[in-house]
Amino acid sequence: MNNVFVIGVGLIGGSFALDIKKQNSECTIFGIDNNENHLDEAIQLGIIDEKANLESLSKADLVIIAIPVDAALEVLPKVLHKISDEAIVFDVGSTKEDICLKVKPHPKRRNFLAAHPIAGTEHSGPRAALQGLYKNKTNIICEVEETAFKLQEKALKLFSDLGMRIRYMNPKAHDKHIAYVSHLSHISSFMLGKTVIEKEKNERDIFDMAGSGFESTVRLAKSSPAMWTPIFEQNKTNVIETLEEYINNLKHFKQLMEEGNFEAVYNEMKTTNHIKEILNGIN
Amino acid sequence: MNNVFVIGVGLIGGSFALDIKKQNSECTIFGIDNNENHLDEAIQLGIIDEKANLESLSKADLVIIAIPVDAALEVLPKVLHKISDEAIVFDVGSTKEDICLKVKPHPKRRNFLAAHPIAGTEHSGPRAALQGLYKNKTNIICEVEETAFKLQEKALKLFSDLGMRIRYMNPKAHDKHIAYVSHLSHISSFMLGKTVIEKEKNERDIFDMAGSGFESTVRLAKSSPAMWTPIFEQNKTNVIETLEEYINNLKHFKQLMEEGNFEAVYNEMKTTNHIKEILNGIN
Repeated sequence: MNNVFVIGVGLIGGSFALDIKKQNSECTIFGIDNNENHLDEAIQLGIIDEKANLESLSKADLVIIAIPVDAALEVLPKVLHKISDEAIVFDVGSTKEDICLKVKPHPKRRNFLAAHPIAGTEHSGPRAALQGLYKNKTNIICEVEETAFKLQEKALKLFSDLGMRIRYMNPKAHDKHIAYVSHLSHISSFMLGKTVIEKEKNERDIFDMAGSGFESTVRLAKSSPAMWTPIFEQNKTNVIETLEEYINNLKHFKQLMEEGNFEAVYNEMKTTNHIKEILNGIN
Repeated sequence: MNNVFVIGVGLIGGSFALDIKKQNSECTIFGIDNNENHLDEAIQLGIIDEKANLESLSKADLVIIAIPVDAALEVLPKVLHKISDEAIVFDVGSTKEDICLKVKPHPKRRNFLAAHPIAGTEHSGPRAALQGLYKNKTNIICEVEETAFKLQEKALKLFSDLGMRIRYMNPKAHDKHIAYVSHLSHISSFMLGKTVIEKEKNERDIFDMAGSGFESTVRLAKSSPAMWTPIFEQNKTNVIETLEEYINNLKHFKQLMEEGNFEAVYNEMKTTNHIKEILNGIN
């Protein structure tokens, strides 16, 4: 892997660049980004070696597409047209059905691997990039059988070098499950932030009274709307379904409170405490 | 302060015990708890020096009531009956209106200070106690004018030694604001956990796909139902109001998605991003 192209030099793309450079110090990392400032920052921070554009992709061994999921749909076919037969391209988007559908008829489909590394923070841009971000994180790979075997191998070797666990899923199942464990969390957090900001005109009071519990629940409300809007758009049906269920559960909880049925309120919480063991990975 | 009594030797009471002992190594910390195992654990962990019961309170210089808010309502009058005129009692509950009302007619009202240290974790019990938990944390004090001046001073000195910031509020305002920045977060987290658990029968899938975002949003769903049920009961009106607003905000977001109005979805998130500066304490 001599020539690595990272399209989108933000948190996700930038973190890949840092780790890949550490693993293969002799490779050259090329950065492509709409945002010229981000490219300059990425060079200053040592995330990329050179600025590039789509025209130079013919020399790429690896291309990582780490841009918002709507932009990825547009860019991926163009990238596939430019690369050589030996290059592997993977994306990192939080929705997998649309991109897999889009790329299905492409003559270079077998050069693409649909991936979703479950990693990140609420921050964005090159400054948010972190070395070791992917260590011990899960990488969900969709439609692996559609990627050329030799190129699968190349990508999987990279993920393994970076310390990632691999899970294979079909794109439909991915989008459905991820709506629950990721997309819904973001909306619940954003709406929590909104509810509190609306109420608390005197912001000093929020800050002083807010404990670490509020901070952790609302952390995701710092996330980038430019990244999340197209995710919600592409995963609309699943996200609406999770929202419906979440709203119903909240309504039920509220009704129990209104009825003064605090034994049931207790049981609602007791049952959900079980999340502790789930998060610890103990069944 | 020679004789310190901690009623409830869990996370909150235990952490006070650890810090007080560190500040005043010559004092004796007495533990009172319904749960005999917790008392034994607290002794083993060096949190308390001796087990005690309400009968020995006459020798107390300081009494900390750190039990669920329903139990605190029952125990506080009994404690006040037992203590000397020079003793100061404070509670740490997350609701302040009921306890202030309850204690109002008590002949020893002036020995009581209503406090709410905004500190804690999702864990509970003596093993969850942490030295330094209160450093740089806010302590909300209600109806300070109802506490004898000399005893106020004693308690405030302690809070200051432990590194806490003090804010004074009336109990009504406390309960209203805290419903937004604390109680609602807990419900949103519990219901998020519930929604995901209900959906994901195969728990392994939740664990593998869940990133740090889900983990932080759902962290509070590990909290103790025994502690939180009476809080929700005592703060019922405010909590129901916050839940209503939260549910309405979620419904509105869902509606925007159903209408395909993703520009508005973007704006919802963009506006709420402002929480970043609020949490950083920058206006």
